[in-house]
Amino acid sequence: MAEATANIGVVGLAAMGSNLARNLAHHGNTVALFNRHYERTEKLMDEHGDEGNFVPTESIEQFVAALKKPRTAIIMVKAGEPTDATINALVDAMEPGDIIVDGGNSYFKDTIRREKAIRARGLHYVGCGVSGGEEGALNGPSLMPGGTEESWKTLGPILKSIAAVAEGEPCVTHIGENGAGHFVKMVHNGIEYSDMQLIAESYDLMRRGLGMSTDQIGDVFDEWNKGELNSYLIEITSTVLHQKDAKTGKPLLDVIVDRAGMKGTGTWTVETALELGTSVTGIGEAVFARALSSQPQLRAGAQKAGLTGPDGSLSISDADRAAFIEDIRHALYASKIVAYAQGFNEISDGAKEYGWDIDMAAVARIWRGGCIIRAQFLNVVSDAFQSGEADVSLLFAPYFKKAVEQAQDSWRRVVARAAECGIPVPVFSSSLAYYDGLRSGRLPAALIQGQRDLFGAHTYGRVDAPEGAAFHTLWAEPGRPEIEE
Amino acid sequence: MAEATANIGVVGLAAMGSNLARNLAHHGNTVALFNRHYERTEKLMDEHGDEGNFVPTESIEQFVAALKKPRTAIIMVKAGEPTDATINALVDAMEPGDIIVDGGNSYFKDTIRREKAIRARGLHYVGCGVSGGEEGALNGPSLMPGGTEESWKTLGPILKSIAAVAEGEPCVTHIGENGAGHFVKMVHNGIEYSDMQLIAESYDLMRRGLGMSTDQIGDVFDEWNKGELNSYLIEITSTVLHQKDAKTGKPLLDVIVDRAGMKGTGTWTVETALELGTSVTGIGEAVFARALSSQPQLRAGAQKAGLTGPDGSLSISDADRAAFIEDIRHALYASKIVAYAQGFNEISDGAKEYGWDIDMAAVARIWRGGCIIRAQFLNVVSDAFQSGEADVSLLFAPYFKKAVEQAQDSWRRVVARAAECGIPVPVFSSSLAYYDGLRSGRLPAALIQGQRDLFGAHTYGRVDAPEGAAFHTLWAEPGRPEIEE
Repeated sequence: MAEATANIGVVGLAAMGSNLARNLAHHGNTVALFNRHYERTEKLMDEHGDEGNFVPTESIEQFVAALKKPRTAIIMVKAGEPTDATINALVDAMEPGDIIVDGGNSYFKDTIRREKAIRARGLHYVGCGVSGGEEGALNGPSLMPGGTEESWKTLGPILKSIAAVAEGEPCVTHIGENGAGHFVKMVHNGIEYSDMQLIAESYDLMRRGLGMSTDQIGDVFDEWNKGELNSYLIEITSTVLHQKDAKTGKPLLDVIVDRAGMKGTGTWTVETALELGTSVTGIGEAVFARALSSQPQLRAGAQKAGLTGPDGSLSISDADRAAFIEDIRHALYASKIVAYAQGFNEISDGAKEYGWDIDMAAVARIWRGGCIIRAQFLNVVSDAFQSGEADVSLLFAPYFKKAVEQAQDSWRRVVARAAECGIPVPVFSSSLAYYDGLRSGRLPAALIQGQRDLFGAHTYGRVDAPEGAAFHTLWAEPGRPEIEE
Repeated sequence: MAEATANIGVVGLAAMGSNLARNLAHHGNTVALFNRHYERTEKLMDEHGDEGNFVPTESIEQFVAALKKPRTAIIMVKAGEPTDATINALVDAMEPGDIIVDGGNSYFKDTIRREKAIRARGLHYVGCGVSGGEEGALNGPSLMPGGTEESWKTLGPILKSIAAVAEGEPCVTHIGENGAGHFVKMVHNGIEYSDMQLIAESYDLMRRGLGMSTDQIGDVFDEWNKGELNSYLIEITSTVLHQKDAKTGKPLLDVIVDRAGMKGTGTWTVETALELGTSVTGIGEAVFARALSSQPQLRAGAQKAGLTGPDGSLSISDADRAAFIEDIRHALYASKIVAYAQGFNEISDGAKEYGWDIDMAAVARIWRGGCIIRAQFLNVVSDAFQSGEADVSLLFAPYFKKAVEQAQDSWRRVVARAAECGIPVPVFSSSLAYYDGLRSGRLPAALIQGQRDLFGAHTYGRVDAPEGAAFHTLWAEPGRPEIEE
């Protein structure tokens, strides 16, 4: 057997795995490599072998033998079956005290299950969210590791060496035990769905509503990127809008098929929120908007049936156009705040349910760099959690409360005009409804409780009775008396 | 052992089970009875034993011995563990060819699992949705049985004898194999959530928006119940609104705590839709609205933080009030059509996924009586499916297309005014966004695909290339060339 020289190893050398391995090597780590098909390992060595210290291996046994103790291996393979198969092979070859890191987009419940099984064999299992795509993996991702405190002692310095840096701090923190890292990564992706749908709605209002060109709209996003909306997603929106198609000379956007794909994490975010009873309407609408866009049969049917309605034109004069664009910017900002408030609520409800101690301010800080939703905005989000002002909701922190209050007239105008002109703005309107629902002293849910008591004897609480007391009206009896259950 | 005299038996004699047993006895069936605690069986015999032919039993063995072959037993116990325990005891005591019916609100995937296991032992297992609450169970529920064709031969006549009757037809049909019945019942409940939330939003607009009293609003619902909205839920809404609290003299509604409870079927409907990729935004928003209403910490926090905004007043003159009430009625009707279109899409997507042959027109027909969402409206829904016009979407059937077209100006006004005045109408606005999204020839989802290709190399389709061809722009390279993947 060769000498154990590597302080970290990577299993699975597709785009993400190769880039992560290179990133590790660039930062002074000695990286053992293994891939099921050796050609990929050879390709990486041929093209990038001179970038740092790599130890290519041809079997799991060689791979494990190349690692110094405690052996630390990062798995970058497809979620699901391939992950389980790779883990089993590693566990069999490793020893108590060794650390297995799953850097894929695994479902957090799978991570909880796996951590439990592997802990029973004396090894550490760390589900680690990795955000930033291929480019982030190579040049600095945002990293969200779960797992034990003990594994963090070994893993922390290594992950800090490769993470993105935001304002001098590496974008990585120990999120919490077992599945906490993958949970937070899941919610990150859910928020990303919201952010992207909000940008799409803003674009649609300018394109169809105001009749602007893609270049003009791209310029608006460039402007927005200088202010409070400054973020990676706003920046790349401008890039996409300005891109011309080489073949036709048209804006590239106009030749792209308008069906948004999904890989599952947005769906998981909403499913998990439903289980937890957390209202994440913005993420829900964003996921459903993608689903609708990808239903060709339904959409073709609608064209064939000729569903009528206003044509999307906002009929706004040139003189008023700039003001309405400013309205859209405010609506986007306010809705974005709601999306983050809902996402952070899901994290805190998840932490309660699964027993994690998650530092919300730290989560906001490690999202400032490397990941898809990185934004200036996260500095103030982090401050709001640090101070305790956002404990119950980000919307209650004075900075964000004021931001929404200043934006809300615009936000309301945008939702109203969109409804009138026939442009769908599901996340703008759903976020506004959430804000108005949240601040309502009294909700019409009382009527729903009355109905439920009438048809199903589900009982209701009384505003003048102690919490938990249940009452039932005998709706079918003469005089409909009320009884306490 | 006693002679086998019963043609049907009921296990579990809480409110629903007792009423179903009595209903069976009222219609000439001889009904074997079993409950884990015999006192409940005695109570049923004491209070209602003279209503028909009952065979009370004290053990599962006695219960099974009392049944004629093929033995047919309906289980009415709590979903989950108790159902499994009861089934296991029955399976052990029964013989091949016998039929076990689960009449609880079981999750359809549990039903699929159980049916498979029990079929392997030669017995029939039928998951049967039962809607209509306790009153329906006694006087005629809407019944949605799954399971084999063979079990339906025995079970059909029994279920027809006790089902509600709508326009001369019993409200029961064989939905499809294994879990199809519980699936359809689940979606029924999801639609019920939408219906109830839409009524709550209508009420809120009249109460807070127009400043009307509960009695005045109750009268409006009475009026609405005479037209196309005619339905059980509209009828009971009026009852609840007119009800006075004996203790305070106030409208009962005003003393009911405004937190809407949930028992899980609405949540399942949305989770399942997410898995299937069906957009059920109306049901999703209705479930999240209940979730938000039941978050006391968040709601109290909002009051404490003092989130500002318009006070909900619509500022509509007395002269224009009637017209706005009519707008609300139209908005309710159009949104209701969207909710049903989405719910039926979920059924047809579920049928494809799980291999069920579901007759949508028959589903609409059996919902006309007995169940909570029973309504006149379902006659035309059934016709639309019968004619094939609603195959892809209920919204494409000429009757409903025209109804939405006639309602849409009002619908848009209601959503716009609600956004401006600060009353949350999440299902009104979400349904409108769905309608506008569905009819959009081009959606801004193309921008999302562009973003995804830029940050994650997820590729996109081109409008001028064959379906399935995938393209990727090399965003980081000079000139950003496009390649076909």
